[in-house]
Formats: sequence, C-alpha cells, structure tokens
Amino acid sequence: MGELHVRSLLVTGANRGIGLGLVQHFLGRPKPPEWVFAGCRDPKGQRAQELQNLVSRHPNLVIIPLDVTDPASIKAAAVRVEEQLGGSGLNLLINNAGMLICNTIDNEKMENMTRIYTTNTVGPLLMSQAFLPLLKKSAQRSLGSALSCSKAAIINMSSSAGSIEEVFLWDQAHIVAYRCSKAALNMLTKCQSLGYREHGILCVALHPGWVHTDMGDSVGHTPPVTVDASVRGMLKVLSSLSEKDTGTLLDWEGKVVPW
Amino acid sequence: MGELHVRSLLVTGANRGIGLGLVQHFLGRPKPPEWVFAGCRDPKGQRAQELQNLVSRHPNLVIIPLDVTDPASIKAAAVRVEEQLGGSGLNLLINNAGMLICNTIDNEKMENMTRIYTTNTVGPLLMSQAFLPLLKKSAQRSLGSALSCSKAAIINMSSSAGSIEEVFLWDQAHIVAYRCSKAALNMLTKCQSLGYREHGILCVALHPGWVHTDMGDSVGHTPPVTVDASVRGMLKVLSSLSEKDTGTLLDWEGKVVPW
Repeated sequence: MGELHVRSLLVTGANRGIGLGLVQHFLGRPKPPEWVFAGCRDPKGQRAQELQNLVSRHPNLVIIPLDVTDPASIKAAAVRVEEQLGGSGLNLLINNAGMLICNTIDNEKMENMTRIYTTNTVGPLLMSQAFLPLLKKSAQRSLGSALSCSKAAIINMSSSAGSIEEVFLWDQAHIVAYRCSKAALNMLTKCQSLGYREHGILCVALHPGWVHTDMGDSVGHTPPVTVDASVRGMLKVLSSLSEKDTGTLLDWEGKVVPW
Repeated sequence: MGELHVRSLLVTGANRGIGLGLVQHFLGRPKPPEWVFAGCRDPKGQRAQELQNLVSRHPNLVIIPLDVTDPASIKAAAVRVEEQLGGSGLNLLINNAGMLICNTIDNEKMENMTRIYTTNTVGPLLMSQAFLPLLKKSAQRSLGSALSCSKAAIINMSSSAGSIEEVFLWDQAHIVAYRCSKAALNMLTKCQSLGYREHGILCVALHPGWVHTDMGDSVGHTPPVTVDASVRGMLKVLSSLSEKDTGTLLDWEGKVVPW
C-alpha cells in the first residue's frame, strides 16, 4: 500500500454523514492536508453545526457554500477555492454529495428521477468540469507520471446499489431512482477515467458500504457499517490506488465491485 | 429458437429509424400482430409521413400521439391503446424512443444531461408503469408460466455505448450524456426484470448495433449496420428470449453485452 500525501482536497456534502466523516479523518491524520475544503449548501445553518465547530480547531478547514445542482454555485466555489490555494492545484476532489428517496418501481415519479439524477450524477460531472483546471495543476506539479490520489484524483461516491450486476439490497430497498443515478455515475466515472488519464488524473467510484447515516437509515433497516469504519476503510483504499484502479468501482474494503 | 407470436405491440419513437423499421417488419411478418401501435410525438407531421403511408395499407396499424417525456401524454396513450385492445392485453412494449446529442465530457451541460435522461431513461420507466396493467393482462391470459415475448415483455432499446465495460465507440463519439442515460436504462431494465418476473413479464435491454439512422449518423461517421439488418437480427433475438434472458443486455445478434 502506498502512502497518502494529500495537500488539498474538497469534499462535497461535507456537513454530515460520510462527507463529515471524511473531513474529520483527513483533519485528524498525522500529516493533515494544507487545505480541507468542505462544501455544503448552507454553511451557516443548523445542519452545518459540526463543521462550524471543527473550523475553530482547524485553521486548514474552509467551509465553502456549495450546491452541486446549481452551476453558478459550483463556479463560485471553484473561484473561492482557487483564491485560497494561491497558485497551487487541488489534489483530491471527492464528489460525495448525494440524495436518496425511497419509492417502489411502480410509483417512482419523473420529478424524483430527474432530481436525484441531477444531484447524484450531473453534480459530479459539473464539479469535475469546474475543478479540472485545479486538478490538472496538481497533476502537473506532481513528480512522476503514475496516477495516484497523492497526485490528482476525482473520487465519486457511488454504491453497490448502483451495480447492475449486484443490485445491492434489492429486497430491502425500493430505490430505483437512486440505483439508476448511481449506475449512470459509474459510467461517468469510467468516461472521466478515459478522458482525464492524459492529464494525470485518477478517477474512481467508491461504494462506502451500507453506512449508518441519515441516508443509510432511510431505507428502513439498520445499516451494519459505521461512518468511522467506512471512512477508515476508504482512506486505506485511497492510499492504495494506482494506475490499474482508474475507471473502476471499489468498495470501502478495496474489493472491485462489478458494474 | 422459439417462435414469436406477438398479438399486439407498441413501439415508441416509431416514425423513423429503428422504430419505423420494427413497425415495418412486424407488419410484414407471415402472421402479423392483430394490433401494432406506433407511438410518435406528431402523428400528423411531416416526419410521420412514412407511418401515415403504412396506415393506408395496414388496418392493424394504429398511430398513437405519444411524447414519452410527458406523463399526461403517456396516460392518454395508455387509455387509447386499452380501448383499441377491447379487453385483451398488450403483448410487447418496445421502449425505442431515444435521443442523442454530441458533446465532449468537458462541455456537457446540465440541461442536456437531464433532457437526455428524461427521454432515454425516465420515459421507459413511465411507459412501463402506464402499460403494466395491459402487460399483466397479456401474461395472465397466456398459457404456460415461462417468460417469453409471446407472453408479455418490456424491451428497452439501449446501447453498448451504455455498457460501462465496453464504452462502445469511445474514440469516435463524444456522447457522455447518452452513455450515462443508457447505463441507467440498463439498471432500470434489471430492476424491472426483478420486479415484474412475478407478473410473468420478461424485461430485456437490446443493443441494436451502430445503425445507419439520423441518430447513428449524428456521431459523425458512417455506421456499419443497416436498419433492415438490425431489425431482422433483433426480431430473431426476440423470438429466442426465455426465462434465462430476463434482466440482460443483448445485442442485435443475440450476444450478451456486459454491463
């Protein structure tokens, strides 16, 4: 396993659940990143309280107002991050923001389908476009040509529920809109890996496990994986990623998930 | 290979390309269906001229106004088809309507992403919901329990361009929005196959080949497959489909395409 030297990263949907867990774990590393950008829709709101508490103890944490379904908000966030980085690039973009609504396949509505797709699939596309110049800059300034998360990477938070082969939790979860959006996100990840390899950017989709969060709980059962275990696992996976992994879907324990 | 006894079918996007080809081939069979419903957005328009010409020679062809992105239009079409069927069910629903816009991964816009998803993925979901009662009726009235297109089936026109494994035509076609929508459609097909198996409805996604149509031509090269060859192949595939095929993606020659 390689070492993980992340100088700067941005996590979307960072105010709770897995996003918050990722921010906490990166801040708590022996050598924390110079900058941790935590994107959330309402930085001053009640639901961002934990992020706000972290800021007082971590001057390298910057909370960024960010709605991944709003192109203007994404552009403003990219400008803000670029200013803060002051000429250096962005190491790691973690497209974590996502949503889930339960509905049977007979009752799923157009509005939910497009809303969930916009957040879970289009959001990561637009975020990656907006932060591409900063990711490229990081890749260019990195020594060596091999892809890694220490060089430049896009990590899309996907799910085995979006694996057409596995359809994880079929019997438990009526989440067809979510499944479709994550299958599409897996395709986006593959396209990004093919398109951005020449720029030195690694692109991977991750399945965090079925995690005990607001989202994980909402399917109506008790998820077996804690945020802590999931995030620890994913950080280990991130540190091990190399050339051969770009364009794949891996779970939080490093196993390849079939499409 | 089994025989194909289709008593009634509906094809969406039936006024040109593969949809029109399917209608023509079904009408031309030695034992044509009792009813062929051809859905298109503007039945009286210039672009439906060939369908209109066919109607004069085929009293079993019914052109149905249908916009698969409009839930009200879908509902009206289902009412219309139910009236025409007069108590019998619908055998075969072919969700063929689709769209494609070329754009590089760096330039793809939110509006195109959601528009293409709405047509290519949400449309087939809503169509299948609306015609489910008629498909169930067909399955119930069919002898035997084994799944087949002669009993009841949903066929989603997908593409190997939506195979995350293959990303067909990666070097030729800048079609990330289309790829994502078709990967999502493949997931929808899998979900439908799992959800509707108990109702006796077979659900399959088909890759028609890279076909010489307005859509096929729009990626900027010359597609190698004619509509005629593609449709002949797909009809042969439809006639061979059984239990083991539900929930898979097959190409026009019957080969399984990986997800």
